[in-house]
Amino acid sequence: MNESANSKFRHKLHTVIYEADTPAGKLFDLILLGLILLSIAAVMLESVASVKVIYGKELAVIEWVITIFFTMEYIGRLVSVKKPLTFVLSLYGIIDLLALLPSYVDLLFPGFHFLVALRALRLLRIFRILKLVHFVGAGNQLMDALRRSRTKIAVFLFSVIVICVILGTVMYIVEGPDSGFTSIPMSVYWTIVTLTTVGFGDITPATPLGQFISVIIMILGYGIIAVPTGLVGAQLMKQDVQLNTQKCPNCNADHHRDDAKFCYNCGHSLNK
Amino acid sequence: MNESANSKFRHKLHTVIYEADTPAGKLFDLILLGLILLSIAAVMLESVASVKVIYGKELAVIEWVITIFFTMEYIGRLVSVKKPLTFVLSLYGIIDLLALLPSYVDLLFPGFHFLVALRALRLLRIFRILKLVHFVGAGNQLMDALRRSRTKIAVFLFSVIVICVILGTVMYIVEGPDSGFTSIPMSVYWTIVTLTTVGFGDITPATPLGQFISVIIMILGYGIIAVPTGLVGAQLMKQDVQLNTQKCPNCNADHHRDDAKFCYNCGHSLNK
Amino acid sequence: MNESANSKFRHKLHTVIYEADTPAGKLFDLILLGLILLSIAAVMLESVASVKVIYGKELAVIEWVITIFFTMEYIGRLVSVKKPLTFVLSLYGIIDLLALLPSYVDLLFPGFHFLVALRALRLLRIFRILKLVHFVGAGNQLMDALRRSRTKIAVFLFSVIVICVILGTVMYIVEGPDSGFTSIPMSVYWTIVTLTTVGFGDITPATPLGQFISVIIMILGYGIIAVPTGLVGAQLMKQDVQLNTQKCPNCNADHHRDDAKFCYNCGHSLNK
Amino acid sequence: MNESANSKFRHKLHTVIYEADTPAGKLFDLILLGLILLSIAAVMLESVASVKVIYGKELAVIEWVITIFFTMEYIGRLVSVKKPLTFVLSLYGIIDLLALLPSYVDLLFPGFHFLVALRALRLLRIFRILKLVHFVGAGNQLMDALRRSRTKIAVFLFSVIVICVILGTVMYIVEGPDSGFTSIPMSVYWTIVTLTTVGFGDITPATPLGQFISVIIMILGYGIIAVPTGLVGAQLMKQDVQLNTQKCPNCNADHHRDDAKFCYNCGHSLNK
Repeated sequence: MNESANSKFRHKLHTVIYEADTPAGKLFDLILLGLILLSIAAVMLESVASVKVIYGKELAVIEWVITIFFTMEYIGRLVSVKKPLTFVLSLYGIIDLLALLPSYVDLLFPGFHFLVALRALRLLRIFRILKLVHFVGAGNQLMDALRRSRTKIAVFLFSVIVICVILGTVMYIVEGPDSGFTSIPMSVYWTIVTLTTVGFGDITPATPLGQFISVIIMILGYGIIAVPTGLVGAQLMKQDVQLNTQKCPNCNADHHRDDAKFCYNCGHSLNK
Repeated sequence: MNESANSKFRHKLHTVIYEADTPAGKLFDLILLGLILLSIAAVMLESVASVKVIYGKELAVIEWVITIFFTMEYIGRLVSVKKPLTFVLSLYGIIDLLALLPSYVDLLFPGFHFLVALRALRLLRIFRILKLVHFVGAGNQLMDALRRSRTKIAVFLFSVIVICVILGTVMYIVEGPDSGFTSIPMSVYWTIVTLTTVGFGDITPATPLGQFISVIIMILGYGIIAVPTGLVGAQLMKQDVQLNTQKCPNCNADHHRDDAKFCYNCGHSLNK
Repeated sequence: MNESANSKFRHKLHTVIYEADTPAGKLFDLILLGLILLSIAAVMLESVASVKVIYGKELAVIEWVITIFFTMEYIGRLVSVKKPLTFVLSLYGIIDLLALLPSYVDLLFPGFHFLVALRALRLLRIFRILKLVHFVGAGNQLMDALRRSRTKIAVFLFSVIVICVILGTVMYIVEGPDSGFTSIPMSVYWTIVTLTTVGFGDITPATPLGQFISVIIMILGYGIIAVPTGLVGAQLMKQDVQLNTQKCPNCNADHHRDDAKFCYNCGHSLNK
Repeated sequence: MNESANSKFRHKLHTVIYEADTPAGKLFDLILLGLILLSIAAVMLESVASVKVIYGKELAVIEWVITIFFTMEYIGRLVSVKKPLTFVLSLYGIIDLLALLPSYVDLLFPGFHFLVALRALRLLRIFRILKLVHFVGAGNQLMDALRRSRTKIAVFLFSVIVICVILGTVMYIVEGPDSGFTSIPMSVYWTIVTLTTVGFGDITPATPLGQFISVIIMILGYGIIAVPTGLVGAQLMKQDVQLNTQKCPNCNADHHRDDAKFCYNCGHSLNK
């Protein structure tokens, strides 16, 4: 194979693997999507003892067919990009590798068999394919709303954790090991279970004072869930009303109203 | 019965069954509503062992009276519409049929007795009647808000499921069958129970690492509930405020009411 | 006591009991508030077996002092209003009577002793007193937001109940009595426990299919909580941005923008 | 040490301890942050029986090093401020003292050993350091939104508590001690657990009527969580959109950005 043919082959491979506009590219993505879902189903079923006893062999075959396909695909991706190293170190490159490794590790080091469950990480590969569909717009808007609320959400979560550590310690002092509050970390765990309104019920307060503090924790949790909800809601709302990202050609101010004709900062025309 | 009389009878039947403006139509709807509720109550009570022992016979009588009425009504609907096949294949046509079948199946194939509970599907028939009341406006607005947020909600739910599969697998590796995490599907089920803050407590993490991951799942669930809430809230808000983006041709004021005919600012006609 | 003196006394009584602007009226309200809270505390403590054994006598004395005070107050209210019957049949009149009855019923018919707990209804009396404080504005706004969203909330709750009945029946068929789903009403109860994310955990699905349906119920419940939240949020938001309640002097149209100078409907000046 | 040198030293100490703009001040804050987190970790680990057995001595050493540092720091703060008493009585002064006391109490009165867990209050000291970072803006906005909604939230919480007391009493009458509803306070506790959708499941209703009332409590709790969420969301929204109600003197356009200097519509100066 001379260099030009090689380059042509690599280009064609790139089109099939990375692009979804051609029929071949679309087909490739569909096959990949199907194999990922099949692989996840196989990983899940294999973990069910009763299924493994009966269909263990079939699942192993499916697993290896998929692993070989994914390996070939990984090599294909490596070959068809210009900077293979950049690909290997990219987020998707690492996910692709992690999707392969467990199977080979299991083959080479049978002692690490419990790692095969990590093949479930293959599910993350699905996001690469979904890049192609129109869900991306909606996803981006959601991510954007979350990103813009990020500092406030961080402040909120930090305060919640501090509250849980303090109240968890108080519960440990009040209830003690007899009611299952065996240590401060356990008490803090219980406080988070209660504050988030999950409430497993494996540990419950037994003393009146402990129950009183629990009530405060619950009402607190019931009330402050309003904060992240309000934050994201207000952010999504704002995106809808929206101040746009256009910049004034004169003074560089941004976040103008969508219908603005003049810059709010310098009065220069925005020439929309 | 000559054809004209037949046609007249069918027309009258149609008026009674399908329309609610005449006294006869209103009465018919009320009787239907009552029978549906009575039927649901009978299905429910029949499933309670202690009640069935005592009132089994009475419930069976009620059941057959209702089934016969519903059968006659179904035939009436078939007869009085112009395109019976369209009715049979319509959503309401299928629900109407499903509301009848279990009783007859039970009569003919006693082995399928467990299917009688499907009669509870009759409750769906209630939506046909409610079409007539003014609740529809509010219902439509809600459905509209949900429909408009549908892509974002789908992206959100898909992400939640992917997170649950990944974290469920991690919990399976960390906790293992000893704490009740007997398989990956079971672990994923537990993760969803925890993330949605339901928290049954039938399975709970026993290891410190497992409890730490649980805490992350709970806080995640507690936080991201903000997303659907924010989405629907922002959508409903947008529908509600109803100030539009039209501008007054005279003074350029905007954010008029949707039904405004004159500018609130200068009184100029808006020429809608 | 001649009629005029009697009328004067009744007027003074009315001022003390019903108004909070005079020092006597304020003092009366404070005493009433204290007695209500004391009474609730006594009712609660009396129900705790270990407390009743020791302090039973003291609690009975407190109870009777409060009952006698409330009885005198009730008579005072009856005497000082112009239309006693209207008072008796009003909401507060009924609550006031219900706050007295359990004590007398317990005296006359010892068999109905369990009804004494109904004295907790006295707590409702507190709303009468709070009428006087400035919380009312905030309370009214909240009630107003809930009232305006009432049709939509009703549609939402009705849909939730229909969903719970249908899914509860499906769970009954799928899981059956062996997992604790002993009857359809019990299954519907479990479905509501799960959908509202309460999740007691006394009944949990045991079959894979049952767990799968549970997952759907949980995600549904986790998602649709967005609806009431969005409704009330949008309503509160709208109240804040607010279209006012001024009416156009020319055409009677209302819900103008707060800053409107001209009627949106007829263009007439609003003369603000 | 003459007075001037003393004053100079106090000034320098003040700069290091209270300010974060100098390298020394920054370093001091970082060390403090590290020690607080280390201290919390030590308190937590010490409460875990299995860890204390092995590393008890090391943890005690860490504890005393930190206590001595905090004591010196406390003295430093006392010395370097102008009004030491104001510092001692300030919120942070009290927290600082509470962070020290448990260790000394444990040394002097071994009987109060359970109080050492109160050292977890040291975590509150972290808020002093975070004052320095830019999280403060987001935190302030959140606190501001909560503060502005405070009256409404208080009205809401008060109503919730009244509802819980009333419904808890009803559940006590309906279910009674046999199902675990041993007293009214216990029933009210259970009602709050259920209404806030925590649902431990340690106590569950056993009678059909009790389950019916539970369903009402759950749906109520599921629905009214909308209120705090809506309140905070609407408040945050209002803070965020920040378009003000000023009008352009030239063209009357409104809803300008809060910081706008020129009209977005006609470019006219807004003369702020």
